This record gives sequence, C-alpha cells and structure tokens, in this order.
Amino acid sequence: MHRDGRAFAHKSSSQQELPMSRAYNFAAGPAALPEPVLRQVQAELLEWDGVRASVAEISHRSPEFMRVATEAEADLRRLLSIPGDYAVLFLSGGATTQQALVALNFAAPGQVADYVVSGHWGKVAIKQAKDYVRANVAASGEAGGFRDIPQAAEWKLSKDAAYVHMTANETIHGVEFRPEWGALPETGDVPLVADFSSSIASEPLDVSRYGVVYAGAQKNLGPVGVTVVIVRRDLLERAGQPRADIFNYASHANAGSMLNTPPSFNWYLAGLVFKWMLAEGGVEEFARRSAEKARLLYAAIDGSDGFYRNEVAPGVRSRMNVPFFLRDDALTAAFLAGAKDAGLLALKGHRVLGGIRASLYNAMPVDGVRALADFMQDFRKRHG
Amino acid sequence: MHRDGRAFAHKSSSQQELPMSRAYNFAAGPAALPEPVLRQVQAELLEWDGVRASVAEISHRSPEFMRVATEAEADLRRLLSIPGDYAVLFLSGGATTQQALVALNFAAPGQVADYVVSGHWGKVAIKQAKDYVRANVAASGEAGGFRDIPQAAEWKLSKDAAYVHMTANETIHGVEFRPEWGALPETGDVPLVADFSSSIASEPLDVSRYGVVYAGAQKNLGPVGVTVVIVRRDLLERAGQPRADIFNYASHANAGSMLNTPPSFNWYLAGLVFKWMLAEGGVEEFARRSAEKARLLYAAIDGSDGFYRNEVAPGVRSRMNVPFFLRDDALTAAFLAGAKDAGLLALKGHRVLGGIRASLYNAMPVDGVRALADFMQDFRKRHG
Repeated sequence: MHRDGRAFAHKSSSQQELPMSRAYNFAAGPAALPEPVLRQVQAELLEWDGVRASVAEISHRSPEFMRVATEAEADLRRLLSIPGDYAVLFLSGGATTQQALVALNFAAPGQVADYVVSGHWGKVAIKQAKDYVRANVAASGEAGGFRDIPQAAEWKLSKDAAYVHMTANETIHGVEFRPEWGALPETGDVPLVADFSSSIASEPLDVSRYGVVYAGAQKNLGPVGVTVVIVRRDLLERAGQPRADIFNYASHANAGSMLNTPPSFNWYLAGLVFKWMLAEGGVEEFARRSAEKARLLYAAIDGSDGFYRNEVAPGVRSRMNVPFFLRDDALTAAFLAGAKDAGLLALKGHRVLGGIRASLYNAMPVDGVRALADFMQDFRKRHG
Repeated sequence: MHRDGRAFAHKSSSQQELPMSRAYNFAAGPAALPEPVLRQVQAELLEWDGVRASVAEISHRSPEFMRVATEAEADLRRLLSIPGDYAVLFLSGGATTQQALVALNFAAPGQVADYVVSGHWGKVAIKQAKDYVRANVAASGEAGGFRDIPQAAEWKLSKDAAYVHMTANETIHGVEFRPEWGALPETGDVPLVADFSSSIASEPLDVSRYGVVYAGAQKNLGPVGVTVVIVRRDLLERAGQPRADIFNYASHANAGSMLNTPPSFNWYLAGLVFKWMLAEGGVEEFARRSAEKARLLYAAIDGSDGFYRNEVAPGVRSRMNVPFFLRDDALTAAFLAGAKDAGLLALKGHRVLGGIRASLYNAMPVDGVRALADFMQDFRKRHG
C-alpha cells in the first residue's frame, strides 16, 4: 500500500562506503540510547503494536497511546519510588523552560527565590527566572571556578523564599552533590527545587526531600525532546503569577500532560528506556555501574602522574560528566582524533572549559569506560 | 559491542499473532508520515550517516547535526518560498505555546490584539493570550456553529492592535480560509499572525502577507514534537513584555533555534519530510493532490442523498479535515468498525462534534481517499 522504496534524501558518501558499527558514545546530551531500545524502535517503527501505523502517527488520545503514556508514568514511579503525593508531568521545552515555569508557578510576582549556583546551569536557571522573581544567590562556586560546592552551612538562605533552587549535577563543570559533600540543609517549608537533568535515575533518589525535581530526558532518561517534572501536589495550588494556561503546571497535571499535543513519540521512547532500566535492575544497579564507571575514569586520570588532570574537589566529583585536561593542551586534538579512531566518540570538552569531557550516563556500559581508560593509558605511553 | 537482542518490553498478543500491514491513516495529528521517510529513519536509526551512532544520540551542536538543521531550514525556505527578511525557528511546545509567545513577544502589556475566531483553535489562541493582551474578538463564527467564516467586511478590527490573529484551517470544525471565501483584509501596519498548523505546505503560501506563520509539525510537516515559526525579522525588534529569555523569539533566532537543546530528533524527521515533499513536486503538487482528495471526499458526501452530510459552507470547506455525519447516527460505530476492517484508520470524529472526521494531510495519498470514498459508497449500499 502506497509504498515507495527509493531513497529521496541524499546520502553522504561515507554512509555508502565505510564499514560501520556503533561506537562508545560519550556525548553530553543528546546522548547515547540503550541499543536494545533503538533496536525495538527500529523493528516496530512502521507497524507498532498491531495498530497498522507507527506509534509516531497515532493520536496521543488514542487508547493505544494512552497505554504508552500510563505505563511510562507507572514505570518511572516504580523506578524512582515516586510517592503518591507527587504528580509526574511529561512536557516539552527542556529543562530551561522549566526554569522559567518554576518561577511562574511557585513564586509570587517579585518574591525572593534562593539559588545555589554550582556551575553553568545554575546561572542559566537564574537567567530564566530573573524576570519573575528576586533571585538571591544563596551560594555560588563561581569564585573558585566551580571546582567545589559551598558547604551547606555557608548558604545564605532567605527567610521567605518561594523555593531554593539547586542543580544536582553540573554537566559542564563536572560537579555533583555527593554524600561526601554532606547533607542538604533543612529548608523547612521552603521547597527544594532541583534540576536533575544529568543525574536522574543514576542512583536512588529520595524524592520526598524535594518539592520539584525536573529533568530533560536526553541524558539519563534517554530521548531528546521530552522533559520530566515531578512536583509535590500541594505546590500546584500555589497561585504563582499571571501566565498563559500552557505555562500552568496544574493545568498540565489536570490534563495528564495532554493539555496540548505532547511530544508523543519522544514520550514513547522515554517509556522504552524506563522499561530497559527496570529490566537491567533499576536505579540500584545503575548506581553500582555509575560508581564503577566513575572509579575507572578518575583512577585513569589520577594515576597518570599529571598527564591528565581533573580539577574538581574530590567530594563533589561528578559521576556523570568528567571534564579533564591534558598537561600538554597541544595534544588534545590528537587525543580526540585517536579516541575517535578507537571508537570512542564525542569526547571534546564543552567550549566553556575546553579539554576533554566524558559523559557516563546510564546507557554507557562499564566496558565503554574501560575502553576509554585503556585508550588513555595507551595514549599516555605514546605521548608521555 | 554492548548488544542485547532480547526484547525487554512486553508485546501485546496482537503484535505476535496478526498479520499486519500499514493502513490508510486519517488521524488528525499526530498524523501519517510518508512511508519512505519512515523507511529511511528505520534503516539509519542505529548508525546514521557514518557517525557510528543514531542521529538521536548526537549533540545538536555537532557539525553533523548542524548540517541537518541548516538543510531543514533551507529546504523549508525553498518549499514555502520564504522571503529572506523572515526568520525560521524550529521550537518545541506546539502551536499552543506559540499562542502565548506571540502575545508576549509582539504586544505591549495589556495592548489590544484582534482575534478572528473560525473554530475551536481560535478560541484556544485567545485563552493562551488573554493574560498578556486585551483580546478583541474581531469576528467569530461561533454563533453559526463555526460552519462559516464571517466575511472580511464584517471584521471589527481595532485601530492600534498589536496584531490580528487567525487560524488558517480549523481541524475540528473543518473550516478553512479558501479563495472562494474572499481575500484577507488589508491590515496595514498591523501584522497578520496565522496558525497554519493543519494546512501549511498543502499549497503555495504568500508568506509576505503575514507577520508570523506558525505550525505544529505533526500534521502536514510530519513529526510530532517540533513547531515551525516563520517570523518577519522587524517584528523581532518589538519590546513585547517582560519574559524569560527562553520565551524570547529574538533570542531563539539569534541562537539558530539552539538557545537550549532543541528537539533534534524531531527536527531531523521534519527535515526528511521536507526533502520528501520537494522530491514529490513541492507545494504545487500537494495543492493538486489536496484538491483532488477534497473533491473525491466531498463528492462522496454530497452525492449520498443525505446518507452522509457535511454542514460547512461550501466556500470555506477544509481540504485538510473533513468532518461528516451519518443521517442515522446509530450507524456511526458500525461505520468506524467497518472502515477499520477495510484498513481505513482513525476516522472517529473529534469529541466536540462526534460523527466522522477524515484528515487528508500531505502524507495521505489520493488512493487512500479513493479507498475511503469506495468504502462509504459500499457502506451506504449495505445500510442505506
């Protein structure tokens, strides 16, 4: 039926000529997806689940897609042990949009909101909120180049803040709140709002410690184009500020995240990743793998006699994003080219810092980091 | 390399047992995609264009994805003959989000904006803007059940409106601005802002007649999860209203729609659909097909001696969405079941109107509508 096999888009010559295989992909996001998920998507892309169409081609309100949506939420609740008094939203717009919506939904016009800035994304969070709240920088690691996070005792929290915003993991600076850093401060009735885009589902999460947890999915949760917002239901009753209905979290919650056409295909992809994570052993297993991956890579850096260096304070080193530098920066290009030849992709550092960055999200297997560590050792032998 | 062939998600029994093939999909959106596009996506899903990863797994700022983004814009400009003084944005959030952003970006706080309401979506547009502008309903077809569009001479346009908003085609009520209706009024310095979500690229479009054209992609442009905004560049200089940077069209334009991580995979899908449309003959060819599809279906309705009926005024009947009713509404369920058995999917009318609705976007071949018309005739013979 109306089939047409010819390719209408031009292919690059590389696609036709080179033998290819999937490589270890250290991209910071959009990032690697689990290969079994991609294979399932590929297999059922044209004819999905008996509906004689692609899942990308059906109404988000159809019973078939509603099942996808409902299962995705149930699976995420199970994966993260999300308490019943939290709503789970699947939205578009990325984490950056949520940074504006958090202010619009949870702060009165011009109310003070506290921001703990542990890297680049903490600054972006303020940029998106500053038209709506009086942003108080309660703590910042900027003076120290974001190589450490100020201790909780040093945070200058406001008395009547609408919320305290923090970034659980900073992808560019490679800084993460870790148990070694200490405990988050008790903020009483002031809810903690946390950007977990780059570390969600990499270890157990006590959701009840937060008022809001949000995360762009394109790192640990899989596909680009959908964002998860986990919000304590009582916060949805806050008046917030005048805003369009489409900017109202309560409206999204009441509509089951179908206030308008949601990014349904991306939602389906996320749902498959949730099922994969559960099948692999859940967040406990990913915590174990994440710890092992981080151990391998930091050991390769720290054991290199300074050939490689990571400058982040040991107690806040990120398990997810590891920026590092070569003693001789002139070798960085050769490192990246050699890594690519060895099937280790997307290791170029973010333009803010330069150097190298390896992102170790859930879809990155331990073997990938082992291969990277081996390459690093070999490269050092050749150039050290 | 970290391959795992086992399926981790449960399949429904139907998927394993029934022989399947793709059917004609009349969904209103998310809607049918061109099958050659789906086949190309399927073929290159795991290893795309020599990068040894999926296009869904690479940085939006990588040279490889930047080529996708640049080509998609160039192809859309060619397809729609978009003048150089218009910016083209690829955003998330759907058309509904743009309805809020249009007000935030192009109207001063509380400024009047004119709305021409020709159906459900025109009302939604006001709902999203009403916190930001004084919305003047310049014309509305609501009193007549949205079966016609008020003539331009009857529009009560404001003198100092920020813009005039209209909906080029209404998916639920099946009403479209057509040449038979007449010409759009001259609005002088007041820009026309038009929601073209459900009719864009179905015929040539004189972009220069509009200040802003926006469209969710999930109908004529293909994939769900990405929205196209075509905006005259001088409008980007309007101060608008206080808003987060992520809500600022000028910021998106300056950042090449990469102010934050865009829905890159969806953008890639849209780009493939643009290439398909160009290869098929461009908007002139889709205008020809759309006219033929509409002719076939309305003829099947009008020639049924009242067994089927469409209530829209002939001069504004939509070529894209055709709602119709059976004289005996008790037969609607049998019609839908029989159609499904005949490989004609997603014909159930929107809950607002009930009855039947067939959406005839660009990916629907003329043969699909012929099959629907044949089924309608056969059903009538059996039940008439």
